[in-house]
Amino acid sequence: MAVPPPSDRVRLRRYHERGAHDPSVLHAIIDAIPLCSVGYVFDGQPYVTPTLHWREGDHIYWHGSSASRMLRAVEDTPVCLTVSITDGIVLARAGFHHSINYRSVMMLGTARKVDDAEEKESRLRTFVESMFPGRWDLLRPPTGQEIKATTVMTMPIDEASAKIRQGPPGDDEEDYELPIWAGVIPVRTQILDPVPDPRNIEGVPMPDHVTRFRMG
Amino acid sequence: MAVPPPSDRVRLRRYHERGAHDPSVLHAIIDAIPLCSVGYVFDGQPYVTPTLHWREGDHIYWHGSSASRMLRAVEDTPVCLTVSITDGIVLARAGFHHSINYRSVMMLGTARKVDDAEEKESRLRTFVESMFPGRWDLLRPPTGQEIKATTVMTMPIDEASAKIRQGPPGDDEEDYELPIWAGVIPVRTQILDPVPDPRNIEGVPMPDHVTRFRMG
Repeated sequence: MAVPPPSDRVRLRRYHERGAHDPSVLHAIIDAIPLCSVGYVFDGQPYVTPTLHWREGDHIYWHGSSASRMLRAVEDTPVCLTVSITDGIVLARAGFHHSINYRSVMMLGTARKVDDAEEKESRLRTFVESMFPGRWDLLRPPTGQEIKATTVMTMPIDEASAKIRQGPPGDDEEDYELPIWAGVIPVRTQILDPVPDPRNIEGVPMPDHVTRFRMG
Repeated sequence: MAVPPPSDRVRLRRYHERGAHDPSVLHAIIDAIPLCSVGYVFDGQPYVTPTLHWREGDHIYWHGSSASRMLRAVEDTPVCLTVSITDGIVLARAGFHHSINYRSVMMLGTARKVDDAEEKESRLRTFVESMFPGRWDLLRPPTGQEIKATTVMTMPIDEASAKIRQGPPGDDEEDYELPIWAGVIPVRTQILDPVPDPRNIEGVPMPDHVTRFRMG
């Protein structure tokens, strides 16, 4: 599939080697972690709200309470969704060259509300299933009121760029002879042992989708 | 110290029990992780850029290349800085009650550039020292050109709110009798073994500020 050239708004100006507009690179980062930051403008003031997201094909989705100020503010307005995963802290021999290893994607677009109740339920099903395969059918089914109280937003991933940094520090050549410890402190998301709800029915088994959950 | 009442823009409308405007609560979350998302507006389009931040007293600071579009765009304009730490994924008995355990702070304000070179260097020193105590004096000192090529931004933390969710899922009372596994999958930032730069001088010791580094 031909990929259109990036718009001027997402084309990377500096560090071109860190940029990517390849859908497979974008999708891998978007799918690696279900958390993003939504940027929007309300009364001239920018806001950034952390939220959960998921992807279906070339669209990104996010959701929240229908009473949410954020979701009411973003409908049919320009938004920015940024996914960012920290992979390490980079310590160099000069303060100036300290850095972060990371994978991030910035997506620009106009947020559209998913109006159709059937589509909305289908998107929410995909959301739960993408994090916890097999869970949706185990759950108490959603009521019409719950679907109504949930707003699902979407936009196409068609104006987006990925930025990635990895590897050791990049110091000035003459600084490599200095006796200063440099390197990378790798960081990642650690999943700890699941904590069952004390009110679980006795003997109810912990599903595989809980023990197998990973992110980052 | 008397804390002024929250502005209408950061006052929490829903889930009041999750909100806090107490500086000690705000500062603890801001200090727990050096990564935030900066929201700003350029040509009517919101952008969200992940960046490193640090705090000195009741001001938040962030920095970047003086060539950065983001930093040039935010000077003397309204911005939003959001810090968010994910503590767990909350699995309920109904899709509607699934949630995230988290600690987050949203700060609104007008970004001001730190112009004075001496102040700028002092702020950058605090930044490095806040992450790696004792490191600044071990480093090759910054050059005037490096200080010039670095932009430091700041704003007061005076219009901000914290949101925190913790604990087990909150299901509908009648759903607790269903044989569905519910609970929390705790997540946290894991620090892995530091990876020394292959170009380190042989025998240079790994400093305590590397082995002791923690975040989240």
